Amino acid sequence: MTDSSTNMRLKLPITCFILEIILIILFGVLVVYDHDTDAKAFNKNMKMNNSTGGGHNGHGSGTSDDTDYRNDFYYRYPSFQDVHVMIFIGFGFLMTFLQRYGFSSVGFNFLIAALSLQWATLMQGFFHGLHNGKIHIGVESMINADFCTGSVLISFGAVLGKTSPLQLLIMAVFEVTLFAVNEFILLSILGTRDAGGSMTIHTFGAYFGLMVTRILYRPKLEQSKHKNSSVYHSDLFAMIGTIYLWMFWPSFNSAVTSHGDPQHRTAMNTYYSLAACTLSTYAMSALTAHDGKLDMVHIQNAALAGGVAAGTAGEMMLTPFGSMIVGFLAGIISVLGYKYLSPILEEKLKIQDTCGVHNLHGMPGVLGAIVGAVTTAVVPKEVYGNGLEKVFPDVASGDRETTYQAGMQALSLAITLGIALFGGLIVGFILKLPVLGAPRDNACFEDSVYWEVPGEEHFEEELTAVRTEETEKINS
Amino acid sequence: MTDSSTNMRLKLPITCFILEIILIILFGVLVVYDHDTDAKAFNKNMKMNNSTGGGHNGHGSGTSDDTDYRNDFYYRYPSFQDVHVMIFIGFGFLMTFLQRYGFSSVGFNFLIAALSLQWATLMQGFFHGLHNGKIHIGVESMINADFCTGSVLISFGAVLGKTSPLQLLIMAVFEVTLFAVNEFILLSILGTRDAGGSMTIHTFGAYFGLMVTRILYRPKLEQSKHKNSSVYHSDLFAMIGTIYLWMFWPSFNSAVTSHGDPQHRTAMNTYYSLAACTLSTYAMSALTAHDGKLDMVHIQNAALAGGVAAGTAGEMMLTPFGSMIVGFLAGIISVLGYKYLSPILEEKLKIQDTCGVHNLHGMPGVLGAIVGAVTTAVVPKEVYGNGLEKVFPDVASGDRETTYQAGMQALSLAITLGIALFGGLIVGFILKLPVLGAPRDNACFEDSVYWEVPGEEHFEEELTAVRTEETEKINS
Amino acid sequence: MTDSSTNMRLKLPITCFILEIILIILFGVLVVYDHDTDAKAFNKNMKMNNSTGGGHNGHGSGTSDDTDYRNDFYYRYPSFQDVHVMIFIGFGFLMTFLQRYGFSSVGFNFLIAALSLQWATLMQGFFHGLHNGKIHIGVESMINADFCTGSVLISFGAVLGKTSPLQLLIMAVFEVTLFAVNEFILLSILGTRDAGGSMTIHTFGAYFGLMVTRILYRPKLEQSKHKNSSVYHSDLFAMIGTIYLWMFWPSFNSAVTSHGDPQHRTAMNTYYSLAACTLSTYAMSALTAHDGKLDMVHIQNAALAGGVAAGTAGEMMLTPFGSMIVGFLAGIISVLGYKYLSPILEEKLKIQDTCGVHNLHGMPGVLGAIVGAVTTAVVPKEVYGNGLEKVFPDVASGDRETTYQAGMQALSLAITLGIALFGGLIVGFILKLPVLGAPRDNACFEDSVYWEVPGEEHFEEELTAVRTEETEKINS
Repeated sequence: MTDSSTNMRLKLPITCFILEIILIILFGVLVVYDHDTDAKAFNKNMKMNNSTGGGHNGHGSGTSDDTDYRNDFYYRYPSFQDVHVMIFIGFGFLMTFLQRYGFSSVGFNFLIAALSLQWATLMQGFFHGLHNGKIHIGVESMINADFCTGSVLISFGAVLGKTSPLQLLIMAVFEVTLFAVNEFILLSILGTRDAGGSMTIHTFGAYFGLMVTRILYRPKLEQSKHKNSSVYHSDLFAMIGTIYLWMFWPSFNSAVTSHGDPQHRTAMNTYYSLAACTLSTYAMSALTAHDGKLDMVHIQNAALAGGVAAGTAGEMMLTPFGSMIVGFLAGIISVLGYKYLSPILEEKLKIQDTCGVHNLHGMPGVLGAIVGAVTTAVVPKEVYGNGLEKVFPDVASGDRETTYQAGMQALSLAITLGIALFGGLIVGFILKLPVLGAPRDNACFEDSVYWEVPGEEHFEEELTAVRTEETEKINS
Repeated sequence: MTDSSTNMRLKLPITCFILEIILIILFGVLVVYDHDTDAKAFNKNMKMNNSTGGGHNGHGSGTSDDTDYRNDFYYRYPSFQDVHVMIFIGFGFLMTFLQRYGFSSVGFNFLIAALSLQWATLMQGFFHGLHNGKIHIGVESMINADFCTGSVLISFGAVLGKTSPLQLLIMAVFEVTLFAVNEFILLSILGTRDAGGSMTIHTFGAYFGLMVTRILYRPKLEQSKHKNSSVYHSDLFAMIGTIYLWMFWPSFNSAVTSHGDPQHRTAMNTYYSLAACTLSTYAMSALTAHDGKLDMVHIQNAALAGGVAAGTAGEMMLTPFGSMIVGFLAGIISVLGYKYLSPILEEKLKIQDTCGVHNLHGMPGVLGAIVGAVTTAVVPKEVYGNGLEKVFPDVASGDRETTYQAGMQALSLAITLGIALFGGLIVGFILKLPVLGAPRDNACFEDSVYWEVPGEEHFEEELTAVRTEETEKINS
Repeated sequence: MTDSSTNMRLKLPITCFILEIILIILFGVLVVYDHDTDAKAFNKNMKMNNSTGGGHNGHGSGTSDDTDYRNDFYYRYPSFQDVHVMIFIGFGFLMTFLQRYGFSSVGFNFLIAALSLQWATLMQGFFHGLHNGKIHIGVESMINADFCTGSVLISFGAVLGKTSPLQLLIMAVFEVTLFAVNEFILLSILGTRDAGGSMTIHTFGAYFGLMVTRILYRPKLEQSKHKNSSVYHSDLFAMIGTIYLWMFWPSFNSAVTSHGDPQHRTAMNTYYSLAACTLSTYAMSALTAHDGKLDMVHIQNAALAGGVAAGTAGEMMLTPFGSMIVGFLAGIISVLGYKYLSPILEEKLKIQDTCGVHNLHGMPGVLGAIVGAVTTAVVPKEVYGNGLEKVFPDVASGDRETTYQAGMQALSLAITLGIALFGGLIVGFILKLPVLGAPRDNACFEDSVYWEVPGEEHFEEELTAVRTEETEKINS
């Protein structure tokens, strides 16, 4: 069943080993603990204390003082773990909706995420965190690495079912690099605010992936059409992904905002945006679908658009009221996209977007960027009081006005779209290299090309066999 | 397959849109950030500081001082997320045990929870949190909104499979309102303690739902009987819900207790109550079931009764010893309820309780209320030392004695039962309006009435078809 | 289908009730709240304050001061919940890969974990935490109880599918006891460091379980061979377990380290070890498996070996670079174990290791112990600065040199192996008692021996029936 080009016996191990060994060497040369993870630096001012820690109960804990409780671990790690769940369970299971692609959805998601987070640590550190030639890492860099990984997984959603693991690894390496470049331009050069990544993560990942899938266009993909749909239980597995993404999105958007009120406010704004989005998604799904029946595709995806759309403005004084309007619109736009725009994109623009990332991440990401720019412009800085510094440090310092900041926000959207589309174009052509082993047109959306699939319930095949057999006997 | 009354093409969108637009308007008029989520209020006393935050690593974080670390976000948000998982994954997947009702279980759970948490924010804020005519919200109100939502989902369990999404939305609106009234009477007027909601959440939700399902009694429900049971994989999906509820119940009961020892103690008491409950559940399941085989219904549900029963007394000095006794009894009562009481309730009282919420939330909730009253009465206030103020502020302030407090606890149970049953009665009749589109008696417990169901494994139907066909051929 | 010995009608209830009642009595006699969970002790120095708490929003919260924010709850509980998820969801679902053993995998996991955590509280408290004859408990003891439970569940993996719930309960009681003895020798007598339990948890649990399964060797197990494999959806359920274990392993290894930098550093080291391990696992799986196709067994298990192998050295100054090397090697060793060593162990040593715990916990645990000893020896103590006290209190206090500490670490591995193997030997023979009701050789890996299994999709049986029937008709 595996032809020579899709056989990964040597290609995949060689690629994985080379990439991982390069990563290990670069980590050895470049990466050091940051202040909060380094034993010497963190305890510099601690008085030497001879009382042994030696925990009273099992695996012991040492003594603790106020400095210990100020370690950033305690103020970011719970958010990190929520983000981590979104990346590995959320994205992984969301894509298991296909009837025969569950192993690949969860499994390739797992593989490329594990690669991307390591590579992202280096790329983001290179652009943002070099101190005396060293990359300093801790929980915040771990969150940022997971964020960058999220962007790659969005692109994975666009090409889902049509690529080899090798293509995905190569895509991840390039995409992470371009992500870091774009992020550097936005956050460090332009001083843009984008805590939850409406632009840096969602818009970038979606349009990059859409361009890649455009370049990889398969005119004969209808040969695999019967597998490009769900079955009952695969839709339930996908709902695990959906619900986890939905629940933890408040943590995602707030994970790297400033401590105190911004983190709190961002989580809450996102919570209300998502709640409103869910209502409008159900409404639009019943309105547009056959006989008023709800469509799982909409529920699984569009209900999340409210989180994407609150990614930029969530940390601002958007208010729950504003957040709910944003979420409400995002749900409507997203369902309309699934229903009416996706078929057009496929027919006219030859964009085969398996998961509909344009509807979940693309349009809502652009919406989020616009909402961010508008919120920046229209909310007077007096509303923030002394808290302005945490949200718009450049405005608080007097370096720029809110309108200028809003302009930078808008410019950032344009730059993100440009880099994503251009990057996707180049990477798409790289992925066309035959050696990378894409599946044949009639073997897409099928696990057994790259996975040992267990001797499972071949009921349908057997039914056909029984039928044929019996019919033949009778005829003879 | 959809007859005109169950067709949701217009009804559901119109209802969702109207409800959401009303919510948005009311949020716009009434809701503001609380102290910990508002940029100006939270940073009032912060000295202006020109150092820009501008995170060193990717999406940047600002500077932080001690005030930031005191934001309630850091002391409640991890608990909030655990509660959130219980509401959306826990309740949602627990109800997927039915063979052909998984989409509705997770999907309607999602819809009505998203509505309820918004409406609860307003209702609870109206009764408890008005400051100068505004509702102040933050992480604690988010937890309370999720709590109220939990109550609605308990009632959903009682009517599962027999209602339209429209009926559920209407039920949620009324139930949230009544929940807030009951909660206000208990917590604000009577000064009752009920941190984990044995009364306010579980008893209320269960008896409200039981009364609703009594009013909606279907004499011909046996027409859908073959779908009112589980299949192998649906039971595994349900176990996802069970285990998450079980694991995070300590967070649930402790989420809104006072900071410090009460939160810590409540979590630990609940942990031991649940552990003991699990042992007695397995014991009783083997003892009562056929051939000593374990019954998934018991494991999925009764093992959780220990969490419900520790909902009131969990924050008190119940001790792990006391908690284990409570959990142990709760498991026994719950299994006995499933085995012997539920059939009686259905036959004699015409209460068709799909998930057996009477056994999981009803009786254990009442048990929890009684345990709470007794614990209040019998534990001397000296045991609490200076910590008394956090658990029984009215006793600490000298306003009342522990026995009086215990009386209020007992009275609260009676009030809760009264409001729940009376409310359920009224709401049940409202839900009988034909326009709300309940499924026919022979189409209950079936997703395809309200959902597009994928062209899935229709093995059994096909097998029948094969058999009939072949037989006919042979006979002819 | 149940013969008299496997009928649990009386045996299981009696055992559960007796065990739970003993536990409750011992808790009543021995267990008290620790400083952070006790109302009186924790609030000793609080000034009496008459302001009522009485939460402003629903279920109220009291006033809080700095002491409250120092409660260990806030610095350990999020990690505890992650560990809790690993124990109940992670281990439970990882073992659902078998086609017809999902109820037992999740369900027995649930039962023996609920027992073990209670018994572990007593055993660990007895050895480590007696204060004036009382066991003081709080969140740290809860984590340690979950850790000990993890060890039992590892052993469960070795005997999965071949034991009755009664055997498992008996095994748990003995294993917890021996675990506590071994832990006491290592941590308290030898002063060994093993925060994430490479030795105390993984090595101990694996070799204990391997010896038990060796003693319970079934020469005719091939009679159940057709059930000792996965089906498509059971592999997806297992991936839920895998991914949760993978994501939360950083929390596991760091859960009971000292506060501040050690907790932060341990989590980060584990994160990178796991990421590198994932890459090498995929590489080795494609390299060794048929046609270069990935094998779910490897992905589900070997990708986790990096967490096990970072269990001892994770809190040390291992650096991300070192962690990645460790994880990289762990993945390779683990896949090779599954591919080449497991068949040899079964054929030559008669060790029937259902889940391959030797490859996931055994060898990686030993590797982790060795890495721990080597890291202790080679990293100069100057690297830790003042932080040395938190990681190696005995070295910081001048009681011993790093080389001596390293020797103790190595000695601890030998002791752990000895106690595990000897303990497994004894317990294995105890479990052979016929009264415990092990399933027959042809009924292993089958839920219906101990569970009511729903009238489910008996498609294959029906297909056979159809075939036979039709054939007979034609022949007649």
